[in-house]
Amino acid sequence: MTNLAVVGGGVIGLSTAWRAARTGRKVTLYDPEPARGGASWLAGGMLAPVTEAWPGEEDVLRLGEESLRRWPDFARDLRKEGFDPGLAEHGTLVVAFDSADAGHLEILARHLGEMGRTAERLTGREAKRLEPGLGSVRSGLHVPGDLAVDNRKLLQALYAACVHHHVRFRQERVEELPDAEAVVLAAGAWTGQLHPRLAGAVRPLKGEILRLKPRHGCLPPPAHTVRAVVEGRPIYLVPRGDSELVLGATQYEAGFDRAVTARGVRELLEGAERVFPAITEYELTETAAGLRAGSRDALPYLGVLDDGVFAATGHHRNGLLMAPVTADAVVAWLEGEAPPAGTEAASPARLHLKEHE
Amino acid sequence: MTNLAVVGGGVIGLSTAWRAARTGRKVTLYDPEPARGGASWLAGGMLAPVTEAWPGEEDVLRLGEESLRRWPDFARDLRKEGFDPGLAEHGTLVVAFDSADAGHLEILARHLGEMGRTAERLTGREAKRLEPGLGSVRSGLHVPGDLAVDNRKLLQALYAACVHHHVRFRQERVEELPDAEAVVLAAGAWTGQLHPRLAGAVRPLKGEILRLKPRHGCLPPPAHTVRAVVEGRPIYLVPRGDSELVLGATQYEAGFDRAVTARGVRELLEGAERVFPAITEYELTETAAGLRAGSRDALPYLGVLDDGVFAATGHHRNGLLMAPVTADAVVAWLEGEAPPAGTEAASPARLHLKEHE
Repeated sequence: MTNLAVVGGGVIGLSTAWRAARTGRKVTLYDPEPARGGASWLAGGMLAPVTEAWPGEEDVLRLGEESLRRWPDFARDLRKEGFDPGLAEHGTLVVAFDSADAGHLEILARHLGEMGRTAERLTGREAKRLEPGLGSVRSGLHVPGDLAVDNRKLLQALYAACVHHHVRFRQERVEELPDAEAVVLAAGAWTGQLHPRLAGAVRPLKGEILRLKPRHGCLPPPAHTVRAVVEGRPIYLVPRGDSELVLGATQYEAGFDRAVTARGVRELLEGAERVFPAITEYELTETAAGLRAGSRDALPYLGVLDDGVFAATGHHRNGLLMAPVTADAVVAWLEGEAPPAGTEAASPARLHLKEHE
Repeated sequence: MTNLAVVGGGVIGLSTAWRAARTGRKVTLYDPEPARGGASWLAGGMLAPVTEAWPGEEDVLRLGEESLRRWPDFARDLRKEGFDPGLAEHGTLVVAFDSADAGHLEILARHLGEMGRTAERLTGREAKRLEPGLGSVRSGLHVPGDLAVDNRKLLQALYAACVHHHVRFRQERVEELPDAEAVVLAAGAWTGQLHPRLAGAVRPLKGEILRLKPRHGCLPPPAHTVRAVVEGRPIYLVPRGDSELVLGATQYEAGFDRAVTARGVRELLEGAERVFPAITEYELTETAAGLRAGSRDALPYLGVLDDGVFAATGHHRNGLLMAPVTADAVVAWLEGEAPPAGTEAASPARLHLKEHE
């Protein structure tokens, strides 16, 4: 198959188009607004499968770890072609405010240890020494190896790399499957509308996310990605160098609604003030809501739907993390090679099985 | 004098230009972005001198009341020319959360009574009967006569009325006084840069203000303008019919900074949730910060600065309220007639006096 259509211009679609075009395929990508406007445009960009996946979601963790292993090569290839993937290696600091949070950090630390990753338990005082702008935290967990990516830089780099490899962009919304030898469906939360086997299997999970900038005289953003749970709600602060901070994210089941609510903004700001008090004087430069693509379980759908039609969707919070493994899987299917480890569990065949259970 | 230059295209400049053009003058208005972008574009639009002025600011109150008396004619004239001034007569409900607030309502009620205005003290239960979406309030004060104006509709109407009367718009920032027989300086917080006598006498007072829209299934906005003090911070919720709510406003001395801060947004949303809990599910459609023009006292500067140069600035929170009296005062000076009552106290001559005190 030399002729490939990719539906969706988020991080999954762009990565897939780029990787496929590099193998000499003729690729057309369909998206009304490629490299902008979808869930990848609004993400925090943490590439942290362990702090992201709750112990128990073993299949998700395995797939995430597999993709994380592929991230350095993926970034290097983009760089070699002259495009900056926006990768940052500033690590994560997870902070606890109470004993329940602290217990959670213990479990995370054990989990990371079992995977051979470095993770350091810190007292509140040690956490504040590492990150002086923190509020009154009880304890912390420092994960120095954690990567993060500037999602907007990455999308721009992938778009440029696609153009470089002669991917053709069609800025339109796809209603019917394009006519091509192979089609990859990577339209995020909208993918459920593109194929009957995915109808009802992919759903939108709304998330609100803010961007802030330190004003003159403010403490700069934290040096690490900082995560916490404030009043039961998980939040993260991801620095984009010294000039910007991404603050996310709420999560609701709200259909295709993308309204930024008063509640979401208030809760994020309140939570962030507890974690990093200096944020109160930051400029609030962007409020937005996006739709993650949720699957029925926490795993994406990666694999054959029909003859020549592939699913690459349902990545939930993990699209940026799982872009390399997803793109590599698509290329492997097209080449008739074995897909990366961990992708079998994500096969959409499990939808079929469930129907007949 | 038949040839007039107006510097500033906010509500004061536009009102003045319109009123002067109607008397047959040739008017040129200078503003890089007329009828948009300044403090009037961001206002709540309450025309409520009594609930706005603290007892003691008698001169401000007198000028505000004089302008309020002129508002119906001002609106009627706009309507007669075919333009909708956006006037609403939904009244104000001031609510109290504690005994200090309740004491404040007593003083306001007495004050309104002394001015011959209707003002009804309500228990918390009565307030909720009048406005069922209220949170747990202790008591209230209903001021049925209070007017409010949709500031953006008004600006559009005034702009259209100016065009109708052949006002010439020059979209540029004024550095030196324009060459004209008479010049009116109405550039809000920036007016201090236009004339040496106003240098340091007019300063920016930053205010953050939000706009929200009820989402499907939400309680509609309150029927009245609702005002309250939450944790020492005054807030107001001004409905724009059933479709929008203006929530304001913070107040800081922050120079010419117009950054929307995390703190400002969080405090406004927190306060509003206490007053009107349904707002949490509203869509947050706009966050903005504007610069009110503060004077040394609470009064604006209205009157002659130099031969043929007039000040019409320093209106603080009261620009929309005081637009009619200000425009009428300018026309009176140009015609050599007596200006409206209450304007003498606002003369910039008091700056001169202070220098020699």
